[in-house]
This record gives sequence, C-alpha cells and structure tokens, in this order.
Amino acid sequence: MLQTGAYDILFEPVQVGPVTAPNRFYQVPHACGMGHLRPQAHTAMRATKAAGGWGVVCTEETEIHPSSDLSPYSEQRLWDERDIPALALMAEAVKAQGSLAGIELVHNGHMADNLYSRIPPLAPLDVQLDSAYPKMARAMDKQDIRDLRAWHRRAARNAKAAGFDIVYVYAGHNMTITQHFLLPRYNQRSDEYGGSLENRARLIRELLEETKEEIGDSCAVALRLAVDEMRGEDGMQAHEEGRAVVEHLAALPDLWDVNVSDWPNDTLSSRFGPDEGYETDLISFVKATTGKPTVGVGRFTSPDLMVRLIRQGVLDFIGAARPSIADPYLPNKIAEGRIDAIRECIGCNICASCDALGVPIRCTQNPTMGEEWRRGWNPEHIAPKASDSTVLVVGGGPAGLECALQLGRRGYRVTLAEASGEFGGRALRESRLKGLSAWRRVVDNRIYELRQMANVALYTDSALSAEDVGEFGCDHVFLATGAAWRSDGTGRSHHFPLDCDDAMPLFTPDDIMAGRLPEGPVVVYDDDHGYMGGVIADHLAESGLRVTFVSTASVVSPFTVYTLEQERVQRALVSAGIELSLSTSVAAVGPDSVTIEGVYGGARADLACSALVMVSARTPDRTLEHALGQYAGAPTFEVVGDALSPGLIADATFSGHLAARNFEAGREQAEAALFRREMPAVPSSSRSDTP
Amino acid sequence: MLQTGAYDILFEPVQVGPVTAPNRFYQVPHACGMGHLRPQAHTAMRATKAAGGWGVVCTEETEIHPSSDLSPYSEQRLWDERDIPALALMAEAVKAQGSLAGIELVHNGHMADNLYSRIPPLAPLDVQLDSAYPKMARAMDKQDIRDLRAWHRRAARNAKAAGFDIVYVYAGHNMTITQHFLLPRYNQRSDEYGGSLENRARLIRELLEETKEEIGDSCAVALRLAVDEMRGEDGMQAHEEGRAVVEHLAALPDLWDVNVSDWPNDTLSSRFGPDEGYETDLISFVKATTGKPTVGVGRFTSPDLMVRLIRQGVLDFIGAARPSIADPYLPNKIAEGRIDAIRECIGCNICASCDALGVPIRCTQNPTMGEEWRRGWNPEHIAPKASDSTVLVVGGGPAGLECALQLGRRGYRVTLAEASGEFGGRALRESRLKGLSAWRRVVDNRIYELRQMANVALYTDSALSAEDVGEFGCDHVFLATGAAWRSDGTGRSHHFPLDCDDAMPLFTPDDIMAGRLPEGPVVVYDDDHGYMGGVIADHLAESGLRVTFVSTASVVSPFTVYTLEQERVQRALVSAGIELSLSTSVAAVGPDSVTIEGVYGGARADLACSALVMVSARTPDRTLEHALGQYAGAPTFEVVGDALSPGLIADATFSGHLAARNFEAGREQAEAALFRREMPAVPSSSRSDTP
Repeated sequence: MLQTGAYDILFEPVQVGPVTAPNRFYQVPHACGMGHLRPQAHTAMRATKAAGGWGVVCTEETEIHPSSDLSPYSEQRLWDERDIPALALMAEAVKAQGSLAGIELVHNGHMADNLYSRIPPLAPLDVQLDSAYPKMARAMDKQDIRDLRAWHRRAARNAKAAGFDIVYVYAGHNMTITQHFLLPRYNQRSDEYGGSLENRARLIRELLEETKEEIGDSCAVALRLAVDEMRGEDGMQAHEEGRAVVEHLAALPDLWDVNVSDWPNDTLSSRFGPDEGYETDLISFVKATTGKPTVGVGRFTSPDLMVRLIRQGVLDFIGAARPSIADPYLPNKIAEGRIDAIRECIGCNICASCDALGVPIRCTQNPTMGEEWRRGWNPEHIAPKASDSTVLVVGGGPAGLECALQLGRRGYRVTLAEASGEFGGRALRESRLKGLSAWRRVVDNRIYELRQMANVALYTDSALSAEDVGEFGCDHVFLATGAAWRSDGTGRSHHFPLDCDDAMPLFTPDDIMAGRLPEGPVVVYDDDHGYMGGVIADHLAESGLRVTFVSTASVVSPFTVYTLEQERVQRALVSAGIELSLSTSVAAVGPDSVTIEGVYGGARADLACSALVMVSARTPDRTLEHALGQYAGAPTFEVVGDALSPGLIADATFSGHLAARNFEAGREQAEAALFRREMPAVPSSSRSDTP
Repeated sequence: MLQTGAYDILFEPVQVGPVTAPNRFYQVPHACGMGHLRPQAHTAMRATKAAGGWGVVCTEETEIHPSSDLSPYSEQRLWDERDIPALALMAEAVKAQGSLAGIELVHNGHMADNLYSRIPPLAPLDVQLDSAYPKMARAMDKQDIRDLRAWHRRAARNAKAAGFDIVYVYAGHNMTITQHFLLPRYNQRSDEYGGSLENRARLIRELLEETKEEIGDSCAVALRLAVDEMRGEDGMQAHEEGRAVVEHLAALPDLWDVNVSDWPNDTLSSRFGPDEGYETDLISFVKATTGKPTVGVGRFTSPDLMVRLIRQGVLDFIGAARPSIADPYLPNKIAEGRIDAIRECIGCNICASCDALGVPIRCTQNPTMGEEWRRGWNPEHIAPKASDSTVLVVGGGPAGLECALQLGRRGYRVTLAEASGEFGGRALRESRLKGLSAWRRVVDNRIYELRQMANVALYTDSALSAEDVGEFGCDHVFLATGAAWRSDGTGRSHHFPLDCDDAMPLFTPDDIMAGRLPEGPVVVYDDDHGYMGGVIADHLAESGLRVTFVSTASVVSPFTVYTLEQERVQRALVSAGIELSLSTSVAAVGPDSVTIEGVYGGARADLACSALVMVSARTPDRTLEHALGQYAGAPTFEVVGDALSPGLIADATFSGHLAARNFEAGREQAEAALFRREMPAVPSSSRSDTP
C-alpha cells in the first residue's frame, strides 16, 4: 500500500504509431471460445478487462477469409463487411472505458481445415492439414498470394471501420501462414517468396506495408511474431533467424508483440514452467533491436517484476493473457496499491482448454470469467445480501472457500467449517504433487480475502454431524464436502467393482497426496483420463519407485491435450523411465500381479507388481447430506462442488460461486440468468427457402 | 420402369395415432451438424427431402434442457420457448410439401458434458462422462426425476406449438438417459426406478404417458428404442430384455422406431457391414409383438427389399438416414419407376463424421447435401448452360465424373477423357481394397447417368498432352488429374524426404491397389492418419503377409473415429495378428530394416522387414496444368479434385460439382453463394452491456 509510487511507471501513457495507450497493461490477443458465435458475450468479457484497467484490449485471432476457416472452433471473423457490427460492438465497448482496442487478423494456412467453407486450404507448399482429416493444403501460386494480400488489406480496412485502434499482422504459434512462409520446413519454394530470409519474410513485409498504407494514418500496425520455436535446430531460434527477421523488419511495425511458438510453448502451464517471465531471455533483444514499442508475455503477475522489465528496457508493455483472465482488475489493483488482492493465475490452462472444447472461456481462479454477459457477473461486484440470514459452509476446499468468500462479500454472516486441520481441500492436497505447487494459489488468495472479513468465521478441525449442524442454528447450509477417489476399480471401463485379491495393496490418489506411498514396483492404472493419472505416475517415479503406467486411453492423460500439456506429460513419463501400457485395461487383480488386456482385443497378460494405484472414478462425499435429509431439526441445505459432481477445480470454484450468487435470488431469477443466449436470427416465414 | 405397380405398396398412406403419413418412406432422426446454430440451413435440407418424397421427415436429436447440453456439437434445442421459431421453420417447410414433421426429444444424461451450460450432468448413478473431460455426472434423486419429466413435458408442448406431427421419446444409441435407466450397468438404483425391468423402464413409461397426455390429441408419440446393444451378454439383447421391454411398453407408443445401439452399430459402415438390412433379424419381432406401426433402418436402397419387408409384416415404414442423404429424391424416383437413377449410399459414413466435426453434413455421393440453403443447391435441379461453350474434362475419377455429369446436365457439350482403361480413378482403385467394394457405387451411378447423355462423349485410354488439349479445340478445360501417394516418407512428421536405403523395396497404396504386393514381412507406416493406413494393413494381412503397423498416431486410423469405425478398424488389425507400434515414427530406412522411434521420445529400435509401405502424403498430379500454363494455344482451364487438393472422395465429388455449378457463373456470383451465412443477432449499441 505504501509503495504505490513505485509502480507509477506502469501507468504512463505510451504512444504507438498514431494512437496512445493510457498505460502499459496490454491484454494480448487470446482465444476465448466466444468468437463469431457469441459477439455480445465477447464484448462484455473484453470490456470488463478494460474496466479493470487494461490499457489495450485485443480480440482473439480474426479470420480474414473463408479460406482460413477454423470451424468448429469459434474465433473471430472478418470474412467480409457483414462481420463489422459484431466486432464494432467490442471495439466500442473497450474504447468507452478509455482503452485501446486491438484486433489480430489472421490467415491460418494449412492449420485451418476449412471444414465449414470447404475451400481447399492454402499453404506455401503441398502439405497435410494438422488434424486427423486426411486432406492436404495446396501450394499457393502467385495469384493466390495476391488474393491473400487483398483479403488482408480488405480486412484491415474493415477493422478500421469497426473502430479498432491497433491492427495486427500475425506470424506466430505455428498457426499462421505468414510464419509458415518464414520457416524452411514449410517453405520449400523456388520463387521470390522462398529461399533467402528476405524472400521468406516477403509476405510479412508486404502485409505490414499494405496494412500501414491502408489504415496507418489512424491505426497502429502491430506485428505478432514468434522469435523462437523451442525446437532447437529443427526450428527458428531467437539467436539466429529469429533475430535476423526482427532486424530485417525492425522499422515497419508500430509495435512488436513477440513471443515463442508453438502455442503450448507460449502458454506454458505452471506444471512445466513454474516461474513467471519464462520468455524474457528469448525476446529481450527485440526492443533494443527495433527501438519500437514492444510487448511480451510470461504469465506476469508481480508488479515488481513488471517495473523491472520496463526500467531495464526489455518491454514497453506488460503483455498478458492468462493473468488478465484470472484477474481482469489486476491493473486497477496495482494502481490502488492492493497488490495482495490480485487473484493470481495458477497456470492450469483451463482457460486455453475452452478454445479446443468450443465453449466460452472459464478460469479456475476467476469463476466470473466468461459469465459477464449471460449471467451479468463481474469479478469485483456482487449483489448485497437479500436478508439477514446466517449461513454455514461445510468444507474448506475450493468450492467451500469460494462460496464462503462470495457470501461474505454479499454481507451475510458466514461460518466456514473445515474438518481437517488446514483449509484448501483438494487444491491444497493436489498442490503437493509434482509440478502442481502453483495450484495452492486457489487457497491462498481466498484465505487472504476471507481473513479480512469481519462477518466470516473460519474454523478448521471441525468435522460436523447433522446434529452439530442443527444445533449450530444457522438459516442455511452449503455442503462442500468434496469427493474421494475410489479404490475398487469402478470407472469408465468397469461399471462394477473389479475382482481384487486382498493381498494386493491398493492405493488411490488420495493416499499418494497424503504421503502414503506404496512400495514398488507399482502399477498406476488410469481409467480417469484427466490429468491425475499422469501426475501420480510422475510423482511416484520421482519418489524412486519403479512405475508401470497402464491406461485405457491411447495416450497419457488425454484431457491434457486441451490444456496444451499432453506432449510434455507423456514425454516426462517416458524420460522418467516409466513403462507405458496404453489402450490397455486392468481385467483382474491378483496377489502379486495385475492381469491386463487390450481394449481392442488380443491376449491377456500378467504384470507383476507390489502395489496398484487406481486412478479411476470418484465418490462424492454425501454422508452429511444424507444425514441432514433424515434429521428433523436441519436447516435448508444445498450441495456444491465435488460433493455434487466431481470435476475440475475450476468446476468446484464455479459451483461455489454460482451457489453464493443464487442464494436467496429465487430459482426463477437463477434460471433466467442461465438461459441468456445468443441465437441466430430466424426469418418469420421459411416459404421462400423451401425447394 | 415396367414394374412401377410392384412398388405401390410403398406409397400407401399409414395412420400413426392421430396423424397420417402420406407414404412409407420415413427419414428417421439423424444428426446433420446444423442444429440450433443453423436453422435456415437445417430447414432447407429437411425440406428438400420432403420434396423428394419422404413421407415423414424428422429433426436430429433435440435437447430438452440445458442439463442436456451437447456443446460444442450443434444438435437441435428446445430448451425453452425461445427455440420454437427455429424449429417451426423446419416443421412448416416439411409440412408444406405434404409430409409429416417429426421431432426427437432427448436428454443425454452423462453423455452430455454440459460444457456450455455448466450444469452438473445427470445420470441414474454417479458416473464419469463419456469424454476425456474428468468430470462425473451425479445420481439423480427423486426431485431430479420429477424435473426431468417436467422438462420433457414442456418440450413436448413446445414441439406441438412448433407444428410437429410426431414427437419422440428417445431411448437409443447409448446416448440417452432413458436408455441408461434401462441398462443394469448404468442403473444400480435401489428405488422404484431400479431393479426390476418394470422399474428400469418406469421413466420411459412415464415420459410416454405424459407426452401422450400433453399432446397426444393431435400429435403421434413415437418411441425410438435400441432393442439390442450388440455386446452379447454385457448388454441388452433383442431376444432377452430387448423383447421384454417391447412387450412391457407395447401399447403405449403410437409408433415404434427400433434399432440397435450404440451409434457405430446402428450406422454400420459398409466396410464392416456390406449388406443392407443388417438390423432386420434383431428388430423383426417388434411389429408382431406390438401391433403398432413400426419403422426400422438398415441402409435400405433396394425397393424390392423394401416391399418384401412391408409384405412380410416386418416393417410399416422404410426408415432411412444415410439413403435419404445420398438421395433425397429416392422415393420420387421409385414412384416414377426410375430405379436405376437412385444415387445409392456407399456406407462411407462421411455424413456421420460431420456431427463430431461440428460442421454441416456432407455426402460423398450427393455433393448438394448440406448446401441447400447457403448455395441454393438441389440434387435434381441445376441451372442450364450459360453459353454454347464446349468443355473438356481431363480425368475420369470422382471429381472428373461429377464435373462432367453436372456440366452434361446443364446442357454443355462435354468430353470426358480418362488416361487409363477404366473410368473411376481412385474410387475404383480403392474399391478393390478389403471392405471398400461399395465405394464403387460412386463410379457406377455417374457412369450410368453419363452414358444416357447425348451431349457427353466418354473416352478411356486417352492420356492428353498440352498439345493434344490445344488441338482438341474446346473452350474450357477442367483438370481432374488426381494425386499419387508419395513413397519418400514426406508427411506429417517429416517435412523432407526420409533417408532410405535403395535396397529396401518401397511401396505406396497406389502399388497395393494396382495389385503390386510386397513380399513379407512388411511394415506399413501410417503418417497420414486417414482410413488408408488401416485398410492397407488389413488388406495385406488378408493376402497372407506378416504385417507390422507403425503409426505416428496413438490409435489406428484416427480419422475413422469420425466415421464411427475406429474401434472396429483397430480390432480387425489386432485379430488379424498384425503387430501394432503406435505413437511411433520411422526415423530411417535401412536395407532390411526400418529404424523406429517414439514420438514422445525414448530409445530407437530396428525393425526387420522385407518391404515398407509408405502411407504418408500425396502429390497432386499437376503435370498437365503446368504444361498448359506454358502452352500458347491452350484454352482456359481450372483444376478440381485431388489434383487441386488431395482429400476424401467426398471432397473430390464436391470439388467437381462446385466447378460445374460455378462454370460461367462469374466469380462474384460464386463467392456470393459461398458467403451466405447464419449469424447471431447483434444489437445496434453495446453500451448497456459494458460494465
């Protein structure tokens, strides 16, 4: 609080070409699962960030033509003039807060399957698409390149018409045709667009020049460039061609937005990149080389580090995607000296998962993310209490903590009772596993807030029976009693418990998290397919055990594809010497071995081991719910979080938040909020469309 | 033509409860990738089928509540009254053609992830979702069941308001909560909804009774039931509980729509179920048991079989999904005695793939499918020629055949020149591989039509040079010269040719299709990920070779997940004794072995073999295109099909069709058609939505 002046430099205006950003907080373009399908939801989400102090707020990638059609993933579109109104809505809302609005134009080349538009995909060379769809993009000829430039020019013109201040040329994340032209493994052309670096950079140069020519009088032109691919000599490296490209194009953009590719490298999860600022070493040459305003990212949440990067001349803008999702009001909180109130990103990448899952963005830390429009939620504002009711929250895990926090903010008198000796529940337990320490922030942030509330009482070591609850005398109870991992093998593959010999020691993730480790050799059986199986195997191997990983999935931890981690997860297990037996189920458990069989048939086999860790399904803890249901003196109650439906930690915090918002709001109001939707227009009569 | 009278029985009206179908052709509910996102496209597609003579035309599954939210897959929605206009559009258009409109209400239970609505999924028991998302559905309590019944009742009322004639209760495909209640592996309840068959069928009975009570005065109530799960004793069997359920509920529905589950069993591809009528034995008891109008499916395209099934008392309605997609005018063609003109489904399941790919339905045989609204296409109507231009089509594969056919129908003077001795190109070649014989229909149907056209000349054995084309003297040339499989290993994993020892015999799918088989043992290397790698391995194993299948994918032929075949594909290879080495790439090729390495790291290994079949990438054949580009006397030309962009056969027929439609239409008109889109409404000002 006393150091506010130390951060003043973060709030200086910065000129970028013909426009001026009000401060140095810059929400770089990031996917959000809203896109062209949900313009109002998109607008409200971005505008919330502008309201929270981000001086620049950008769209996600914006397709410039149906030959870059990412369907069914919903990004932004500026295929033609009809897309202007949806984007103008966002630009207007961001600018109404005094921020600059940026738009990231893109052509995705062979990373776009064009499944909706059905146009043959385009690339520098004949090359396969990046999906399972067995189709190839075609090598662009000169007319194709001229067309592409014309589409980009038109999109830039339309972006200006929509009201944007900053317009991007985008060459990053291995998802953009401009970057594919840069890279020799994709660009094997023999014309003036192939060969030398100058030739391979020609398309980017042309797009920059033409964008400036078209709209540079009033809009800043940004280049988003990946300067390193993190593949060593197999790709572009910052100290070689990455630098050369920056030098070659130095003066052209009004702003350099630099990062590393591909997406899993740029949006590195905390499991594999625990520290903020992990890209700094690779991008730090850019500002010095170009002399232009530069923005970089690295999951920044520490204002001291931000200040240092500005003072050292590394960056002009503090770029952020995930930190702006976890806390849209991060800049305002720094401005107000409320550093401890920043809701820090935990780097779990659930936000990123929503892009591939095709649904609006969500966040483990910030349950209001993605709900700004359809539910009218804001992370910093909540309706005051509707009555003087007193509430008891049973269970201090993620759902209980969030529920108590929001009820406290509404002004209710809240008691939070945790059975164990520590608050945090699964978030705390899981944070003790290898790579997941940052997840503890889910607990720390909430406990920090809760401890400041005079109307909230916090108790640990307080296991409650139905009688205890009845005698406590509150008006309403929220049951956030969590879930436990099953040890009986029931899961996706087995709908009934497995036949297990009593002599085989069985463990669950709960045992491992509690520090109860088996003796090896151990089989970890994953029939859950989330992140847990891979984490447990990695954790046990690091503890020195010999581990065999058996899974009914064909890859390790398939859900982690969505969080951009899967390749690293499986590589980690391989490099730890863990034996993998994939597409394999455990059919039976003997005294000193498990019997495995292929999920696609084939012979059974026995696998000797001294212990078996089951990562299969979970059982919600509804003991107290059932007891209260039987108990005459019980107050009204409802179940939240894993006790209702075991899921991600993000599901738990959302569930707790939703329950707190809906408390005493009336079911009708709660449902009305749920149902706010964006739908395509329907003509009043179809007759003209019948054959 | 002479037998038309023999099919009269197919055109009898059939009463179903309070409504009467005009004939026995019944388009059962089927997914189409349009759903709530594309109401106008959906309407035009269904209305085209009604215009083609289908007496009943149904929607796809229609979610009755946000707790059955299949996002991002776009099915229909009837969450509340706001969804009525979109569905009324379809019902009105179908009924305007004299057909009945049916709607399939559904609650998907734990098969719905509720990723958009974020409601905890519902199921008879606590059970994992059926996706990689690590979340569990919760066991429904009594209030949940009452809620579900109320949602279904409201949806039925709204379906009637939207104008539907037939309203479904849906219990099939392992995707419906009503079926989950029926099945002991999901229903482990101890209340009156669990235990006995009567108890497990209680929910279906209640929904049927309540739907009849609500709307039965004017709407027929149908039950779609899977009577056999095709999993033997592990699931419901037609001769045991399947029959018992039918007997138990016999009198309740006005119509029985019966099939087998799950979806891959019901929509069996021709590769694994070559004959039509493959479900008949399992469903034939239903009509006799219930005495109610009964509809069944089985990829029916033969009118003689249809008549037999009616006369034998097996069915009252000829149900169809895929045959109605391949030929929306199938009923009219039978009525007109034009049996040979029926465009028969080839059972490739590309239609089904669109549901999971999240884009509008398409069809290998019928390129107009899914394009009825946005491009205004109809399978039986096409604009007449715009001039007296003469055209040459070079290449008689799928793209060339389709292009020539549609140009011929437009009235142009067309010459089709095929270099080889037979028409058909890749469709013919691939039909010679194990399981793909039905794909030959792509050729047969088109050749049949083309041979009847006086304005089309067909030539085989006619390889053409640029000079030949110039001397031929046409006004325009379409180049449909196809593509060839590469043998150099360039593909997804290797962007440059592999280092191959000359002593190792290399083969491609083209060799195998031409009958040039290697000597074993052979390695099939799949870096394509489509269907081809698995087909080649299976084909070679059947030829008696010892085969090892190496793939960079984690499963065999991942694309076949979308065509509902993947499990059968991989099981077939396992049961053929083929060794699988998945998530593995070929790093180098020696004289008598290949060096493999894991795509996730680990040690390299050598695999001894006598031959290597590369299934990696394809090279478009653009020889003639380049020659024409250099040749002064060349007419105008354009490239279509695999020569432009190698893909599926469905991509090739679409490409040929599109080119024929757009010929002399002008680029502007062609682009305008492409761009017709359905977009969400955008308010004129966003100011009220900013924070």
